[in-house]
Amino acid sequence: MSKLTHLDESGSAHMVDVGGKAETRRAAVAEGRITMSPMALEAVRNGNAPKGDVLATARIAGIMAAKKTSDLIPLCHPLPISSVDIDFRFLDDAIFARTEVRLTGKTGVEMEALTATSAALLTIYDMAKALDKTMVIGGVRLLEKSGGKSGDWKAQE
Amino acid sequence: MSKLTHLDESGSAHMVDVGGKAETRRAAVAEGRITMSPMALEAVRNGNAPKGDVLATARIAGIMAAKKTSDLIPLCHPLPISSVDIDFRFLDDAIFARTEVRLTGKTGVEMEALTATSAALLTIYDMAKALDKTMVIGGVRLLEKSGGKSGDWKAQE
Amino acid sequence: MSKLTHLDESGSAHMVDVGGKAETRRAAVAEGRITMSPMALEAVRNGNAPKGDVLATARIAGIMAAKKTSDLIPLCHPLPISSVDIDFRFLDDAIFARTEVRLTGKTGVEMEALTATSAALLTIYDMAKALDKTMVIGGVRLLEKSGGKSGDWKAQE
Amino acid sequence: MSKLTHLDESGSAHMVDVGGKAETRRAAVAEGRITMSPMALEAVRNGNAPKGDVLATARIAGIMAAKKTSDLIPLCHPLPISSVDIDFRFLDDAIFARTEVRLTGKTGVEMEALTATSAALLTIYDMAKALDKTMVIGGVRLLEKSGGKSGDWKAQE
Amino acid sequence: MSKLTHLDESGSAHMVDVGGKAETRRAAVAEGRITMSPMALEAVRNGNAPKGDVLATARIAGIMAAKKTSDLIPLCHPLPISSVDIDFRFLDDAIFARTEVRLTGKTGVEMEALTATSAALLTIYDMAKALDKTMVIGGVRLLEKSGGKSGDWKAQE
Amino acid sequence: MSKLTHLDESGSAHMVDVGGKAETRRAAVAEGRITMSPMALEAVRNGNAPKGDVLATARIAGIMAAKKTSDLIPLCHPLPISSVDIDFRFLDDAIFARTEVRLTGKTGVEMEALTATSAALLTIYDMAKALDKTMVIGGVRLLEKSGGKSGDWKAQE
Repeated sequence: MSKLTHLDESGSAHMVDVGGKAETRRAAVAEGRITMSPMALEAVRNGNAPKGDVLATARIAGIMAAKKTSDLIPLCHPLPISSVDIDFRFLDDAIFARTEVRLTGKTGVEMEALTATSAALLTIYDMAKALDKTMVIGGVRLLEKSGGKSGDWKAQE
Repeated sequence: MSKLTHLDESGSAHMVDVGGKAETRRAAVAEGRITMSPMALEAVRNGNAPKGDVLATARIAGIMAAKKTSDLIPLCHPLPISSVDIDFRFLDDAIFARTEVRLTGKTGVEMEALTATSAALLTIYDMAKALDKTMVIGGVRLLEKSGGKSGDWKAQE
Repeated sequence: MSKLTHLDESGSAHMVDVGGKAETRRAAVAEGRITMSPMALEAVRNGNAPKGDVLATARIAGIMAAKKTSDLIPLCHPLPISSVDIDFRFLDDAIFARTEVRLTGKTGVEMEALTATSAALLTIYDMAKALDKTMVIGGVRLLEKSGGKSGDWKAQE
Repeated sequence: MSKLTHLDESGSAHMVDVGGKAETRRAAVAEGRITMSPMALEAVRNGNAPKGDVLATARIAGIMAAKKTSDLIPLCHPLPISSVDIDFRFLDDAIFARTEVRLTGKTGVEMEALTATSAALLTIYDMAKALDKTMVIGGVRLLEKSGGKSGDWKAQE
Repeated sequence: MSKLTHLDESGSAHMVDVGGKAETRRAAVAEGRITMSPMALEAVRNGNAPKGDVLATARIAGIMAAKKTSDLIPLCHPLPISSVDIDFRFLDDAIFARTEVRLTGKTGVEMEALTATSAALLTIYDMAKALDKTMVIGGVRLLEKSGGKSGDWKAQE
Repeated sequence: MSKLTHLDESGSAHMVDVGGKAETRRAAVAEGRITMSPMALEAVRNGNAPKGDVLATARIAGIMAAKKTSDLIPLCHPLPISSVDIDFRFLDDAIFARTEVRLTGKTGVEMEALTATSAALLTIYDMAKALDKTMVIGGVRLLEKSGGKSGDWKAQE
């Protein structure tokens, strides 16, 4: 039967030993979106017009959250990540975020990409929450990963 | 036209002044879920069997994240929150999280409830990611809030 | 003879007791500047052109640093600050930053305003350092403060 | 035209990828000073007399800030720094701080040296601010760096 | 039967609601000691001789740890502490630390006093560990507390 | 005469340079215990009965504290630790904690193991403090270390 690697044989949580793993070039891409009312979406668009700081604020929040991942997720290893890129795209009823994190190291950066994406979307939520209380953050998932022993992987469309 | 309160008239991000607001009893409830394969869900269930730490780990991650909200979300105020409660429920293809945060203070705790929910779900993701790379975190939204000038609010079912 | 309040009678550092002080509306304004070559200054200007994130990044860094002041400056009290505003202005050979922090509380927010200003300028330094290694951060000082027992104060021009 | 490496082609902030760079021995030295009234300077001197903790407090603040650099400066990489040394010198109207940071790693430690210097000077400011509100922190700059592809560099006197 | 207030009726950890409690003046005093070899103790004494930073470093570590208590202890409330004082005393085979923390707030500061004491002793351990690997930290306990509904309390000698 | 390596020749604290040391597989094991009344111990046991979160909460606190060691102990190096394991054992009048930390790196992880142990015990203290104010944390010490130039070491029973 499948078991969670983050629990030892007695069921106690522990930080898995990655000390013996090789350092390889790794990357992970995650995505997510925040759905909102047309009025809120319009306000974000306007707030992001030239000189407006909306998406820049969310992007910085996401980048900084990637660096805090091991401080937020109890069993994550502290990782000296090499790069973080976050892009946003406006959909009809949502804003879409996509994050890529890279590392040369002993374990993957999926959690860093997912945490950055979540923090970026929560930051948009914070800025728009006075206009719309029904926003929903969803579709937060891994798109692809590369490097490491388990090899490359891509989500199906 | 509606505008984002977190931007000043020139479009720059700022932390909104809440100094003149009254201290009232406030609460916010947020929810979210992580969808996963039957095999991963079964492993989480087993990992949470007597003595297993899975959901306890996620709960602690969420509670601690609630306290870090203003360190993660750039324009959030630091708030001396009064309480945090996080509950989990197993659905057929998902684990559902519900967080309630309380505060006696000058601004609401919606972001604390949403951030705690996200961190708890990300922690479950981390523990199950070796078993299922297609998990999705979604439905992260506000369920209700009370207190403050804008009054009480409840999401529609 | 004048003595430092942050040392006790034996010369040991301690966090001064503010528990008996009244909660009042307080504010502090600080300023500072980063001097750089025309080429670097031009690159920052262009990087801040519509859609460019340079000053937004520095502003967010400053706002977040204001919230971290008591974590950086050993004898500062943790303070639930009410607002932070940071403005930038381009001079001929420098970028000038001005930060205002507000609080309803028991002690002043001078250090929060100065720390935010320093972090914002260091962030600009970071982004321009590949272009100019001779940049200098200077003129970091308090411009005015209000509230509290010691009353209002303004720097001379 | 020169461009900021911390912005991608669309002007968005990102953390630059250093994953492909070689690990080399690197060092950076930064300096800065805090100018203050003779009375405040005298109080700091006395507060630093045998058993007094003033400069020790500032030094520890600086060392700890060096380790927090990537948490303060949004686009800085987290770096496992090898050493930090901070020295102070009393001038006639100022206290001068000089910080050296070392690392074996993929990117330079200029920001760590500058951030440590700023935090050390802000800590002195905090301890002396009840005596002098006109103190100014200035001259914060890089003195020299070594290691890495761009090679060694020294500031002119 | 006595139950832990930090668990709800289903045994789940939660942050206890203190929102309805009154704000009162509170204080807590904790103590602890680190036992070490005569050689290590002598080195700490010398390292603390005029201009030496040993105990100042430990004291700053303790003060800063008091402010981080709610970030370290999962179910502790974030508290705007009013003051922290840490004293050290040399015993024949140990260094003794005593911490007093004060707060005007809704819950006690015992954990802040105990956490500060532990961090101060761990910092001494760190500085002396190259000289003595058999050091032991012990006797970490509450000495007295005042304020709050449960009233004043003093440990027996 | 023996001297503290964490002080330079003038007695100033500094972070020792480990840049020239080799990366080796390292481990450290630390232990400690919290002594408490039979009633408090019984409550912890019950709180840890199936579905109860007491020891899971303390374990997560310890694991997260191991990752924060360099943020708590001023002269510790930031280290990308490979694993953390914390076990608890019930004694007649105490709960005993044992922590093992592993790293492939340039300096030892004794402080990480001791800090994790302390945080885990403080977390148990926090949960039981309403039942027993006379609890004592003690016996916090290094049990063994391996790796590095100074070689392996084991405490005597």
